[in-house]
Amino acid sequence: MRIGLDVMGGDYAPLNTVSGAIDVYSKLNPGTKLYLLGDQFRITEICSQKGFDPGNFIIVHCSQTIKMDDHPVKSYQKKQDSSIVVGFNMLRNGQIDALASAGNTGAVLTGSYQTLKPLPGIMRPCISVEMPLLNGKKMLILDVGFNVDSKPDVLYQFGILGSIYARAMMGISRPRVALLNVGEEEEKGNMVTKEAYKLMSDSTDFDFVGNMEANRLFDGDIADVLVTDGFSGNICLKQAEGMYNLLRKLNIKNDFLEGYNYEDYGGTPVLGVPAPVIIGHGASSPLAVANMITSTERALERDLVGKFKEVLLRN
Amino acid sequence: MRIGLDVMGGDYAPLNTVSGAIDVYSKLNPGTKLYLLGDQFRITEICSQKGFDPGNFIIVHCSQTIKMDDHPVKSYQKKQDSSIVVGFNMLRNGQIDALASAGNTGAVLTGSYQTLKPLPGIMRPCISVEMPLLNGKKMLILDVGFNVDSKPDVLYQFGILGSIYARAMMGISRPRVALLNVGEEEEKGNMVTKEAYKLMSDSTDFDFVGNMEANRLFDGDIADVLVTDGFSGNICLKQAEGMYNLLRKLNIKNDFLEGYNYEDYGGTPVLGVPAPVIIGHGASSPLAVANMITSTERALERDLVGKFKEVLLRN
Repeated sequence: MRIGLDVMGGDYAPLNTVSGAIDVYSKLNPGTKLYLLGDQFRITEICSQKGFDPGNFIIVHCSQTIKMDDHPVKSYQKKQDSSIVVGFNMLRNGQIDALASAGNTGAVLTGSYQTLKPLPGIMRPCISVEMPLLNGKKMLILDVGFNVDSKPDVLYQFGILGSIYARAMMGISRPRVALLNVGEEEEKGNMVTKEAYKLMSDSTDFDFVGNMEANRLFDGDIADVLVTDGFSGNICLKQAEGMYNLLRKLNIKNDFLEGYNYEDYGGTPVLGVPAPVIIGHGASSPLAVANMITSTERALERDLVGKFKEVLLRN
Repeated sequence: MRIGLDVMGGDYAPLNTVSGAIDVYSKLNPGTKLYLLGDQFRITEICSQKGFDPGNFIIVHCSQTIKMDDHPVKSYQKKQDSSIVVGFNMLRNGQIDALASAGNTGAVLTGSYQTLKPLPGIMRPCISVEMPLLNGKKMLILDVGFNVDSKPDVLYQFGILGSIYARAMMGISRPRVALLNVGEEEEKGNMVTKEAYKLMSDSTDFDFVGNMEANRLFDGDIADVLVTDGFSGNICLKQAEGMYNLLRKLNIKNDFLEGYNYEDYGGTPVLGVPAPVIIGHGASSPLAVANMITSTERALERDLVGKFKEVLLRN
């Protein structure tokens, strides 16, 4: 398995990305090869500082970097030798099997559209996160940031994507799908969620269980998949991160709450594209990068993309 | 001060509302009179069960009830003898000085528009909550549920409303206003927040400090007023409620976290209307109702509405 890592992506790159790759190196399957995409001088420098042989990696030098605050589409077009563009080209051409990046999310979204192109029938690829529930289960939330303006039919399709993921990665044979909303009743919501509710309640593609409010996000056993647009989903995810930081600052420690440590999430796969692309947290620590690489390896092992193709190409 | 209480509003009405009124009765200022709007038989029954003299209240019998899942606008028009409609009529006619309700939020919104009518120049009245911050300060979030579809100019106006509130009720002379968004950078966000950012950054009406992400909701010292649409704001508020419930279930107790106990919030005033209207949590306990009544008394004491009129009628 050949995993490409965008070492220039993230607020503390390339130090944290290269460090994370070094830390995780010995834990990967023997057959896994890490391709480090970025400034080769910085990569070898960090390796030598850490007393690590850079020959363990395959280094692909990239002369450009898409910065976190660069305009995603413009920079993707202009910076053809950036680690993100090079990574997407290699993925499309079959030179690597998966790509992991904690870089500019908009640029990764652009690469998913322009270079990889969504799977047939997919209107909008999205990203998702498995959030821990008090009952020990997890709930998949999607979209958590790709599509900040989502139309009702796109939300409907997130129900399909989430169901495929929940079956493939979470082992749930018949996932329950809910819609994040401001009230439980059918008539509650904004224009988009009201319309999405109508579409979803008629669904034969998945098992719709109705609206869910955000006060049930942690302790509810209402759904396995929670559908929302990328704006609200991102706010939920970041507020959970804020809760984790708050409790840490208050010196409150608890095994269950440790599940909200975003460093452990590692990465979240882009759903609806023909090859595995994993996105990490912008503020990724070396541990988070290491976990992002492990997540990427797991998505390849479980053939996540193959399972999406199986369902989507069947229809 | 004459405070009207919709005793039929809330998931556990009228038991919890009447009980809350009884509990708070002795703590109110001697000059405060409570008007209980609702089914007089149920009110007197609950009073007698609790050994409380119903003659301490002024009971206004209402033969109808707008239920929590009734269609707000339709039921407001149809149920002219419901506690909510009667309350708004009394408020408009000067028979009471303020109205408190934990009932159907949409119906209270309807009454605010149709019976009270917004203050001159106000496009959309809204509701707000003061959220505790780790530094001991509070941050006002608005809108938290009235306007689930808000346009950029409405968000801009929330900045004005929030600033007036922060000066009047929180004692902040120059409130900092931020916009809730999915990234800090100017170009981040959905169509509405991108446009709102442009309007707000040119503002001479308030001190705009830029975008804020939800991971800074608890521990940040970024803003005194956080502007968002009623959909995202409601999700933030309910997720904070979910956090409180989660920690309670995990048996984690902490003085600071107790600040997120929504029972203590009591109520949130409708901003932008010509008389004090306070909205309580739908699932209000007697304690929450008692606090809602105290909040209402405080809004009258501090002449919150007078301060809004002062600023808005000056322009």
